[in-house]
Amino acid sequence: MPVNYSTPAADQLKPVGGVTLGVAVAGIRKPGRRDLTLVELVEGSRVAGVFTRNRFCAAPVQVCREHLLGGEVRALLINTGVANAGTGEEGLANANACCAAVARMLEIAPNQVLPFSTGVILEPLPVERIVAGLPAARAALRPDGWHDAAHAIMTTDTVAKAASRTIELDGMKVTITGISKGAGMIRPNMATMLGFVATDCAIAQPLLERLVVEAADLSFNSITVDGDTSTNDSFVLIATGTAGNAEIADARSDQWRLLRDAVIGVSVELAQAIVRDGEGATKFITVAVDNGRDRDECRKVAYAVAHSPLVKTAFFASDPNLGRILAAIGYAGVEDLDVSALSVRLESATESVLVAESGGRATSYREDDGARVMAGAEIGIRVDLARGSASATVWTCDFSYDYVKINADYRS
Amino acid sequence: MPVNYSTPAADQLKPVGGVTLGVAVAGIRKPGRRDLTLVELVEGSRVAGVFTRNRFCAAPVQVCREHLLGGEVRALLINTGVANAGTGEEGLANANACCAAVARMLEIAPNQVLPFSTGVILEPLPVERIVAGLPAARAALRPDGWHDAAHAIMTTDTVAKAASRTIELDGMKVTITGISKGAGMIRPNMATMLGFVATDCAIAQPLLERLVVEAADLSFNSITVDGDTSTNDSFVLIATGTAGNAEIADARSDQWRLLRDAVIGVSVELAQAIVRDGEGATKFITVAVDNGRDRDECRKVAYAVAHSPLVKTAFFASDPNLGRILAAIGYAGVEDLDVSALSVRLESATESVLVAESGGRATSYREDDGARVMAGAEIGIRVDLARGSASATVWTCDFSYDYVKINADYRS
Repeated sequence: MPVNYSTPAADQLKPVGGVTLGVAVAGIRKPGRRDLTLVELVEGSRVAGVFTRNRFCAAPVQVCREHLLGGEVRALLINTGVANAGTGEEGLANANACCAAVARMLEIAPNQVLPFSTGVILEPLPVERIVAGLPAARAALRPDGWHDAAHAIMTTDTVAKAASRTIELDGMKVTITGISKGAGMIRPNMATMLGFVATDCAIAQPLLERLVVEAADLSFNSITVDGDTSTNDSFVLIATGTAGNAEIADARSDQWRLLRDAVIGVSVELAQAIVRDGEGATKFITVAVDNGRDRDECRKVAYAVAHSPLVKTAFFASDPNLGRILAAIGYAGVEDLDVSALSVRLESATESVLVAESGGRATSYREDDGARVMAGAEIGIRVDLARGSASATVWTCDFSYDYVKINADYRS
Repeated sequence: MPVNYSTPAADQLKPVGGVTLGVAVAGIRKPGRRDLTLVELVEGSRVAGVFTRNRFCAAPVQVCREHLLGGEVRALLINTGVANAGTGEEGLANANACCAAVARMLEIAPNQVLPFSTGVILEPLPVERIVAGLPAARAALRPDGWHDAAHAIMTTDTVAKAASRTIELDGMKVTITGISKGAGMIRPNMATMLGFVATDCAIAQPLLERLVVEAADLSFNSITVDGDTSTNDSFVLIATGTAGNAEIADARSDQWRLLRDAVIGVSVELAQAIVRDGEGATKFITVAVDNGRDRDECRKVAYAVAHSPLVKTAFFASDPNLGRILAAIGYAGVEDLDVSALSVRLESATESVLVAESGGRATSYREDDGARVMAGAEIGIRVDLARGSASATVWTCDFSYDYVKINADYRS
C-alpha cells in the first residue's frame, strides 16, 4: 500500500486545451487489461523530453530522441506489457512500425509520433496487436482522458499516479496536468518510470527545453528506490499554447517563474508518488542537504544516504541509527569534507531534532527524540555541510522484508 | 552460515618468525569474551597499511596513519566492543593513551604502536579496562597465537577468518599468515573490516608499501556486501625479515613475483571469507569484467552489477534474470559503452553459459542453462566489454530476507 498517496479523483485532473487521450485493450501481454494509450496533440504544440542514461536504452527511447530533433510532435503512443528493450534492430523497426501506423491513422508524418513502451524486456513488441488496438484508442480520445490514461500506463504500480494544477498568467487560466508510472526500478522487467506533463501555456521552445530538464532534475531525477535505472525511463513535457497567454520567451519574467513553479510542483508530486508506491515501502523519506559548495556535492551526500541499504533498513525498523547515517555521509565521495563542521537533523512535520554535530553525536541529543521522529511514516534527514550555499533534496523509501520478497519471488 | 567457508585448524596457520600474538578478556563491552589482542613484532620489522576513505575515519585510523609516518612499528593493539569512531578529540586522546600504555609495558615508544578498534561507534573507548587487560595479553604472547587472535577480533562475524601459505625464496622457507574480520559493512556499528597479514620475508620498505596497496586493491577493495564503507576499515602488511632470504628490492625479480602472488593469495582468501560470511548470504558471487579500456571502467561495471539490489535478490532466488544484469551494466557510468558489442556469461565451476550478446539475449541461450548455473552456491557473471584489454573482478553475496531481518532487528 502506498505511503500517504491515493489517486486524485477524475474531476481533479483538469483537461489541458489541445490534448486528448484515449485508452484501449490491445491484449499485448495479458488479456482484458487496458494496455494502450494514445495521446493526440493539437497542431502547433511543442514537446521536449529527457530520457534514461542507461546505455541499454530501449528502442522507443532511441526513436523518441530522433523524432524530437525533427518533426512537430502530434501524438504519443504508450504501451504496457512489453518494453521493447534489448531487442536490437528488430526493436527499432517495430517501434517505427507503430509510429507509422499512428501516422497513417491520424494523417500525420511518422516522425510526429513519440513511442513509449514499458513491460518485460528482451521480448519482441507485438506490433500487430498494437496496430489492431489503435482504432479503439482513437475512438476513446477525449480531453478528460487523463484518469483513464493514468491507469492504462500502470505495470507493477499498485496505484495510478496523476496531478493537476491551474495558475493564472496574463489574466488567462493555464492548466498543468500530468501522469506517471513506476514503483522505482524495483522490477526492472516491468518498472520503467514514465512521466507525461502537459500544459496549455504558450511558451517558446528553448524555454520549454530548459524547463523539462529543470523539472526532471528536481523530480524524477531526485528520487530513488534502490538506485537501479531502467532502460526505458522517459519524461516528456508538452505545451499546446491554447491558453491564450502571451508566449513566455523570457526567463526573467514573472510568467516564467509562475509556470516553472507549477510544472515543477506537478512533476515533484508525480515523482514522489512513485517513491510512495515503492515496492515494500512503509516510510517516505526526504533527504535534504544544505550549504554545500555546489549542487553536485549535495546530491552525492543525499544519494549516499538515500541508497544505503543500512540506512533504509534502519528506517524500516524506525531505528534512529545515527552511525549508519554518518558513515554514509562519510563515504559519499566528497573528498575534503570536514566532518567536524557538519550537522545532521532528523525531522518530522512538527519537529527538528539535532542529532549530530562536531563529528559525533550532538550533546543535546536524546535517543527518545530521534525515535519519536522515526516512528512516523514521513521522515526527514537534513544535513548541513556548512561550507557553501548550494542544496539538494532527494526522496526515497525504506527497505523492508517485502522488497526482498517481491523481487526474489517475481519470476517464480 | 558462511557460504563454503570454515576456519582453518590452528596447526594450518603457520607461525611467522618475529611475530607473537596474545589475546585477553578485558571486559570492554561484554564480560567473558576475548576482546583484546596484542601483536608484538621483532625489532627491524617493516609495516605498511591502507585505511578507510570514509571522511568519518575513526581515531585509531588517524593515529595509525601518523605512527606509520614515523616510528618503526613494534606492536599492534586491537580491541573489539567499541570502535572509538565519531568520538572527536577525546577519541584521539584515548587511542594515544592505549598506545602509551603498550609502549610503557614493552619499553618502546608510543609511536611504535598501531591501535585498531572495532565495535559500536559514538561511544567513548574504555581506556582503563583496555590498559588493565594488557598484562594478560602480553603474558599470552606466542608465535602460534594466530588462531586465538582470529577469534578475538571477531564482532558480528559468525566464523573466524584466517589463511596461511608458505613459499620458498632463495632456498629459504617464507611464511605468509593473516587474519581478518568483518561481515561486510552490514552492521556499521560493529562491522569494520580489519585485515592483518604478516610474513617473515625480507623486503625493502618501498616494495612493501607497493605490495600493501596492490594486495588491498585486489582483495579487500574488491569485495562488497552492500556497498557501505566503515569508519575503521584497515589493512596492514607486516614483514619481519627473519626468514633469511636476500632482501627483495627489485620489482622485476622472480622473488618479488613469488612473494606478491602469495601475499595477494592470502589477502584474497581473507577478503573472500568476509563475503562468504556476509549477513544473510546464501550465494558467493564472482563478477568478472574483461576487455575494458582500463581497470577503472571494468571496476565500475563490476560494482554496478555487484551493488544492484535487484541483481542480488535475483541471485537469492536462483533466478537468471538477464534483464537486471544488463540494466546494471548499462547504468554503470561508462559513457560511450557500445552495448551491442559486449557479451555476458553465467558461470559455474563446470560450465560457462553465454546469455547475452549483440545488445540482447544470446540466440543460443536457453533459460534452463542459466537456471542450472544459478542453482549453485558459487556463481560467476563474466562480462566481456570487447573494447580493450583491462579487467577487474569483484566478489559479493546475494541479498536475502535475512539481510533485512538482521539489520532491521539489530538494535531492538
